[in-house]
Amino acid sequence: MSIQVAVNGYGTIGKRVADAVALQPDMELIGVGKTRPNHEAELAIENGYPLYAAIEDRIDLFDEAGLELAGTVEEMVEAADIVVDACPSGIGADNKSLYEAHDTPALYQGGEDADLVDVSFNARGNFDEATGADHVRVVSCNTTGLSRLLAPLQEEYGVEKARVTLVRRGGDPAQTGRGPINDILPNPVSLPSHHGPDVNTIFPDLAIDTLGLKVPATLMHTHSVNVTLESTPDADAVRELLDEQTRTFLIPEGAGIDGAGALKEFAMDRGRPRADIWENCIWSESVSVEGSDLYLFQAIHQESDVVPENVDAIRAVLGTADAAESIERTNGTMEIGF
Amino acid sequence: MSIQVAVNGYGTIGKRVADAVALQPDMELIGVGKTRPNHEAELAIENGYPLYAAIEDRIDLFDEAGLELAGTVEEMVEAADIVVDACPSGIGADNKSLYEAHDTPALYQGGEDADLVDVSFNARGNFDEATGADHVRVVSCNTTGLSRLLAPLQEEYGVEKARVTLVRRGGDPAQTGRGPINDILPNPVSLPSHHGPDVNTIFPDLAIDTLGLKVPATLMHTHSVNVTLESTPDADAVRELLDEQTRTFLIPEGAGIDGAGALKEFAMDRGRPRADIWENCIWSESVSVEGSDLYLFQAIHQESDVVPENVDAIRAVLGTADAAESIERTNGTMEIGF
Repeated sequence: MSIQVAVNGYGTIGKRVADAVALQPDMELIGVGKTRPNHEAELAIENGYPLYAAIEDRIDLFDEAGLELAGTVEEMVEAADIVVDACPSGIGADNKSLYEAHDTPALYQGGEDADLVDVSFNARGNFDEATGADHVRVVSCNTTGLSRLLAPLQEEYGVEKARVTLVRRGGDPAQTGRGPINDILPNPVSLPSHHGPDVNTIFPDLAIDTLGLKVPATLMHTHSVNVTLESTPDADAVRELLDEQTRTFLIPEGAGIDGAGALKEFAMDRGRPRADIWENCIWSESVSVEGSDLYLFQAIHQESDVVPENVDAIRAVLGTADAAESIERTNGTMEIGF
Repeated sequence: MSIQVAVNGYGTIGKRVADAVALQPDMELIGVGKTRPNHEAELAIENGYPLYAAIEDRIDLFDEAGLELAGTVEEMVEAADIVVDACPSGIGADNKSLYEAHDTPALYQGGEDADLVDVSFNARGNFDEATGADHVRVVSCNTTGLSRLLAPLQEEYGVEKARVTLVRRGGDPAQTGRGPINDILPNPVSLPSHHGPDVNTIFPDLAIDTLGLKVPATLMHTHSVNVTLESTPDADAVRELLDEQTRTFLIPEGAGIDGAGALKEFAMDRGRPRADIWENCIWSESVSVEGSDLYLFQAIHQESDVVPENVDAIRAVLGTADAAESIERTNGTMEIGF
């Protein structure tokens, strides 16, 4: 019997995870949870996903909106083998007791604190550590992007120290109320940013310092990466290594892709759902080695790079596949890789 | 007799340098050169600066605009002890033969190639090297900002290696035709950016790698700085050292200055001409030391930080003051330092 998956929260991440789960031959999406009947709730119904109300008091609102409910989130959690919590940051923590009450293992997103869970997860970094855990956090978009990059570098060359400046988008395209406009903000102004310690939830012994800024852009984050390696490969060897990974896209020299706008155009031209880019996008020309210092730029799509990681985390927690099998199945069904 | 200074080019940099020269007790601004009669040419007349036409064919245009000319730029150069070329990038190189023909030593701006000149200049970095040189380049805003920062660090602690990501404004506030909008562009995408080699024109032996990006902001550049030091001071010692410098502004913790917008507001409130910020603006809270790695954020005002450097370079070339005297005089007359 296939894995019965519930997705609680059907916003930016939840709707993408639901679609990805629906593609998996070994999984069944038993429903999605919503707090209110907005356009995304309508979308769930259109997609044929059973819709569950997160808050009992609001059941009437769904009725008034003409949206048929399959029940409450509590009922959905009870029926599920595993729940993916894709609620806004902090709400996942509020939901933990519900999942515990029904003995349903749960995945949380990177906006939750690391100490909420037993294990923080990245498929390329530490798949096996999640097996059997009740509460697992799929790390944030930026930490996912850094983990995918650092794992092969660590294995192949050894990492003496990573130093990363994250030039972060101010908000997602639909988050109209966020800033900054016309400014470059050190954010946080105190160091390190949370990203370095967050990478250490995946790789506890890796030396990494991170600095964050926010700028007036919405499409993707961009990382300016320095990694001091323990050996000194040439740049072409590093390019080959990164190209061999399955969730990195080495932007070819001369492709005419100069930033996030062109990357999104590229994704749309290739029919990607919601113009999603699940891969780390690394500019091939930027990969440089000076002595033992590796440098590169990579762009990270904040809305979607964690989606395949959530799918893999389901199998990891339930122990139904090993890392290689799961990653291959997820990549194949989602058509990951340009 | 005071130094007879001509300023050729009266745009973003030229008009600021002219005003600063006019403030110096040991200098006389004998005129400014313009190619065409726009609002800035009118400003020169309003300020009482003799106006010289750069292109003989266009003298009629100035007449038609009702702007009285004092003569041609060639006549101005002949009369000057030194000329500050503040023309757009590349035009300085075209003008070099004119200055040579009149045996007038010349300063150029950072947009010109380093090999156009005998010496690249930063007052804090290498004042004495410019003495007696015929052609001197005042390095760009970003290189000036890096030189001011690295000079004291090198002297006090020794620099093993500097690694800097420059998050650059797309254009100046009045450059309406420039981008990017809503994007974060690796620029240049190949490493290193020109800033590292440019710093090496001031400090030839300093190990530095730089990466550049462009974002949708116009007010200031922001540098994410890492310097691996040869010794390991604590962060407070570094703050003190940077606070002792005369052209660095350590933004106090709790000042409510989170980015370039607030910095410009701060400058305007204090009556700065054109809201100029001549100093490196270093966020005190960002100054961090991890092992031998120093990190900090600094903002650099692209339109004005080179202005005091141009004033000092005049004295350096003509040998009329040493570094300490010149910097003190320039700072005093311009009221540099918050």
